[in-house]
Amino acid sequence: MDKLFYSIQEKGPVCVGLDTSMEYIPDSLKKRFDDIENCLYEYNRAIIDSTKDIAAAFKVQIAYYEAEGLPGLRAYKRTLDYIKQMKIPLIADVKRGDISKTGQMYAKAHFSGDFETDMITVNMYMGSDTLEPYEKYLESGKGIFVLLKTSNPGSGDIQNIKTQSGELVYQRVLEFIENKGRKHIGSSGYSMIGAVVGCTHIEDGMTIRKRLKNTFFLIPGFGAQGGTANDVSRYLINGNGGIINSSRGIILAYKKEKWEDLPFDEAAREAALEMREEILKELQTEKE
Amino acid sequence: MDKLFYSIQEKGPVCVGLDTSMEYIPDSLKKRFDDIENCLYEYNRAIIDSTKDIAAAFKVQIAYYEAEGLPGLRAYKRTLDYIKQMKIPLIADVKRGDISKTGQMYAKAHFSGDFETDMITVNMYMGSDTLEPYEKYLESGKGIFVLLKTSNPGSGDIQNIKTQSGELVYQRVLEFIENKGRKHIGSSGYSMIGAVVGCTHIEDGMTIRKRLKNTFFLIPGFGAQGGTANDVSRYLINGNGGIINSSRGIILAYKKEKWEDLPFDEAAREAALEMREEILKELQTEKE
Repeated sequence: MDKLFYSIQEKGPVCVGLDTSMEYIPDSLKKRFDDIENCLYEYNRAIIDSTKDIAAAFKVQIAYYEAEGLPGLRAYKRTLDYIKQMKIPLIADVKRGDISKTGQMYAKAHFSGDFETDMITVNMYMGSDTLEPYEKYLESGKGIFVLLKTSNPGSGDIQNIKTQSGELVYQRVLEFIENKGRKHIGSSGYSMIGAVVGCTHIEDGMTIRKRLKNTFFLIPGFGAQGGTANDVSRYLINGNGGIINSSRGIILAYKKEKWEDLPFDEAAREAALEMREEILKELQTEKE
Repeated sequence: MDKLFYSIQEKGPVCVGLDTSMEYIPDSLKKRFDDIENCLYEYNRAIIDSTKDIAAAFKVQIAYYEAEGLPGLRAYKRTLDYIKQMKIPLIADVKRGDISKTGQMYAKAHFSGDFETDMITVNMYMGSDTLEPYEKYLESGKGIFVLLKTSNPGSGDIQNIKTQSGELVYQRVLEFIENKGRKHIGSSGYSMIGAVVGCTHIEDGMTIRKRLKNTFFLIPGFGAQGGTANDVSRYLINGNGGIINSSRGIILAYKKEKWEDLPFDEAAREAALEMREEILKELQTEKE
């Protein structure tokens, strides 16, 4: 998380999400590369190149690559390698969650070897033992974002069930994040155990932020899902402590009317710049 | 689930779990195959061959293969292909859970293409929208097992939180499984939406079984984790409606004293036979 913190200090809190589906690849690229692996990888590479000075981090959503089987996962690996070589913080959105030996295998899968990344997302419905396999990696600078309050419409089905003591289920998850996280605070003041907090449920988000001051937020829900620059600015602490992700808003910007004359990578750059400006302006207004 | 039901009618309720780690591969095999892909695949193939007349289903835990990167996932694919070719019901223990377009990608990943399987495990902490992407596949005979009450020590951390209305969180998950499942009942009388219910928390398990009569259970926790034949027999309805998984108890049987003189695949066969006998004996006793 320290690496992420300093990257945000330098570039602002925008994360470019590479949720790359074969449906998104423009014909111009499909003509040059006629296989899945190269289409997905070359699309990503062009977007990475055009946004690398704006993106404080890249988030790669593994589901899109898994959906294309082995060629998809080869493109996934090459995309990770390309980002790592640039030393830009890298989040793999894998939402894994398992326990014991199986949990250790997921930690090994994503914190070493072919699919090594800096940070991953984790689901702890199975309990606090889901987090244990990752702890030894946190000491060497790896980070996890635990699903806390997600941005989707149904997120309340489980997360917002009211408990007997009057709090909500996600507040119990929060306690685990807080307690375990305390042991892993880095030089930035933030813990290596972060939380996924969507910006579409702003009241829940504010409750969480009030309680968690040393927890980095991975914030989905900006743009297409309804989160605004004003919403997300309220999740940040002095413009940091949170990274705001946009996937389709950036990688599919070339389908928007205002950018339809641009190549897909230049449109992505415009969208990332616009997003960053909106958020930085909002943070500036707050300061004044 | 229908395919699974009829397989259990024929063979009994044993599922052989292929949680194959490189650490488990005996030297004899490592000498013949010096790469990860072939070691994992050939180990699995030998165990599949030696247990295929006993196993009502095979469960492949993807984490072990993911941990070995691309060669691991090639072995995963080949293992799935080998089982599918034999028409034995196949469960991929992937515990995926995501929403919207990303959820659709996970459904595509595991119900079509390279990693196609009959049934997968699903985590619904993100809410009921986690289940939607799978529904269209259920109509063509695919099945999902939703994590309900898992077998690990920490499973109560979230799952057993008491809600304001006096029930436990997993009972809410149960309601979603029941309500969504009702629309997908097959010819066996069981829904295509099943549930993961560990046999290490027997009281919770009995509460769940009392409520869910048309839900197939995937039952982990047998053997090493403490579940007995008596425990699991109580989860079944007339000897069916549940599939009992054993992974290390079978695939690592060759490390047990009583089978240490056997090759690993023969030891696995002995362990699977013993497990099935214990369970069938228990079911017989109950009947009498």
